Amino acid sequence: MTATPTPRIILTGDRPTGRLHIGHYAGSLRRRVELQNAGTYDAIYIMIADAQALTDNADRPERIRESILEVALDYLAVGLDPELSTLLVQSALPALYQLTFFYMNLVTVARLSRNPTVKSEIQMREFGASIPVGFFTYPISQAADITAFDATTVPVGVDQLPMLEQTREIVHRFNSWYGDTLVEPEALLPEDEASRRLPGTDGQAKMSKSLGNCIYLSDSADELKQKVMNMFTDPNHLRVSDPGKVEGNPVFTYLDAFSSDADFADFLPEYENLEALKAHYERGGLGDVKVKRFLLAVLDRLLRPIRERRQAYAADPGEVMAILRRGTEKARGVTDATLERVRAAMQIEYFG
Amino acid sequence: MTATPTPRIILTGDRPTGRLHIGHYAGSLRRRVELQNAGTYDAIYIMIADAQALTDNADRPERIRESILEVALDYLAVGLDPELSTLLVQSALPALYQLTFFYMNLVTVARLSRNPTVKSEIQMREFGASIPVGFFTYPISQAADITAFDATTVPVGVDQLPMLEQTREIVHRFNSWYGDTLVEPEALLPEDEASRRLPGTDGQAKMSKSLGNCIYLSDSADELKQKVMNMFTDPNHLRVSDPGKVEGNPVFTYLDAFSSDADFADFLPEYENLEALKAHYERGGLGDVKVKRFLLAVLDRLLRPIRERRQAYAADPGEVMAILRRGTEKARGVTDATLERVRAAMQIEYFG
Repeated sequence: MTATPTPRIILTGDRPTGRLHIGHYAGSLRRRVELQNAGTYDAIYIMIADAQALTDNADRPERIRESILEVALDYLAVGLDPELSTLLVQSALPALYQLTFFYMNLVTVARLSRNPTVKSEIQMREFGASIPVGFFTYPISQAADITAFDATTVPVGVDQLPMLEQTREIVHRFNSWYGDTLVEPEALLPEDEASRRLPGTDGQAKMSKSLGNCIYLSDSADELKQKVMNMFTDPNHLRVSDPGKVEGNPVFTYLDAFSSDADFADFLPEYENLEALKAHYERGGLGDVKVKRFLLAVLDRLLRPIRERRQAYAADPGEVMAILRRGTEKARGVTDATLERVRAAMQIEYFG
Repeated sequence: MTATPTPRIILTGDRPTGRLHIGHYAGSLRRRVELQNAGTYDAIYIMIADAQALTDNADRPERIRESILEVALDYLAVGLDPELSTLLVQSALPALYQLTFFYMNLVTVARLSRNPTVKSEIQMREFGASIPVGFFTYPISQAADITAFDATTVPVGVDQLPMLEQTREIVHRFNSWYGDTLVEPEALLPEDEASRRLPGTDGQAKMSKSLGNCIYLSDSADELKQKVMNMFTDPNHLRVSDPGKVEGNPVFTYLDAFSSDADFADFLPEYENLEALKAHYERGGLGDVKVKRFLLAVLDRLLRPIRERRQAYAADPGEVMAILRRGTEKARGVTDATLERVRAAMQIEYFG
């Protein structure tokens, strides 16, 4: 007797609270497209997590509503292919609410309060004592998302590992109380450091819509140029001849994330690679404008085809919504089947 | 232009964690039957709150499962009529999970922690720091139950008023953020003091399965007799001639709740009423056995027809489950319609 191999299934997604930017691209979208095109997974589900976004935006649902189409356009623009990756809208899946409700019985308030990701997000959002209950409990809702798809693999950053650990605990507890029912997911961590969170164009640690320091995938060529040429660099690098710092200099962080040796060959052949450019900057004699022009060329090469695909899809929003509808219907079948299995395990199907 | 009158709708119910006892009868069931038969409400929904019971019984779903039929039998036995009152099972209504999820965004963790009913129940259940999240958040789930039925009226004890206040706050917040959508419920308080919580037969403040101090609606005539004749009374009332205390004496508390002047005329005509009996007990010369025999006659008159109806229904459990199924299907229509209204108000119906 040979064991049936567990299908390899990815669940990932984004909160629709605005258009996606190059931080999302470096941190997750690029990898997703690679994983999709490698064809080594049996299924890839990409969730627009609108219900989760509402947990701290409940008083402005229109912001979430408007972002759903934008995020879908960004997905299609970067090369996510609805034939290979299922694109879906979270709030339209009834099973997720019900799984969340049942999993809330498997986690204590004390355990939830210790979750470091929740702690730091509460701090970042300046909630103080007024955390919405829905936000406080969102690790449980994420466990519902992940397990509803029988996901084996969840691409996350290191800072998201405690969230996944919470899911794994819920899976353990559920399976030990009700019998083997849920699939335990594994984290898929980024392969390189450059894929970690990108700073804003102003040097702040994080790109954020409210800080106006994002480069969006949907930015026009002019917007891109203006944003790159106005980027924060090393504030002590006043004259070209001054030695400059590359650490904490977002221009170089972006080059770390996006530039290749081919970019140097094509756009800045006087340097063999990024190490050579950094060395020159650090010893002095290299001006910010030259480095920024190179970054602009790199980003333009990356973003131009994305921008063009985005414009093509944006011309037919009805078709984009139809893509989401079809993906969501498929996801509904999958998540409803999981819910049925969960209810059977809990023995709460009283009416047969 | 005249305003359409709001339909008067009652929602009430019980956690199915065992058979119902005379404490439930005095505290709520008796009133429910009166309200049902008075015909002054447009709809009465009686919910077997199994999903809520699971919040602190998640590791023993079989206890809840078995109690559902028992509670339904108790309902039918006391005179709840499925033609007049809709009997339903909470966990089979998908809308409730979803409403709970959305309402969790409208309440802060701090607000929930201040709820005195939750605080005292946590203490009573000896949860300490390990409160399940589902239990902590059950006031929000109750708000989902109440608003899903557009209930105008919720029969509650004084100790449950903070729960209803939480629902009213959620209704206010929802309606102010998303437009007038939810109906604000009012409490219906007990009419008399005797309807408050009955003590156990052992004099403990509360009837509890684990303490073995309950008189169940389903008890046989023999069980009833044994329990009444062994009841705790005044421990200082040693001889018949001793003066006795009626306060804190559960035999008299039960008589307060259940005996009528007609009972005296029929079973103990030497006393005009309960006041006369109490006066004799307090001045001395009245034995416990005589009082207990009277209580037994009173309870037997009350419980005999209940017991007989219960036995008749218990002979056909399939029909009882069919009654629950029909009520639950009706409730599903009502609660799904509310959910549709809620989702439309939140503008999260992206697919038309």
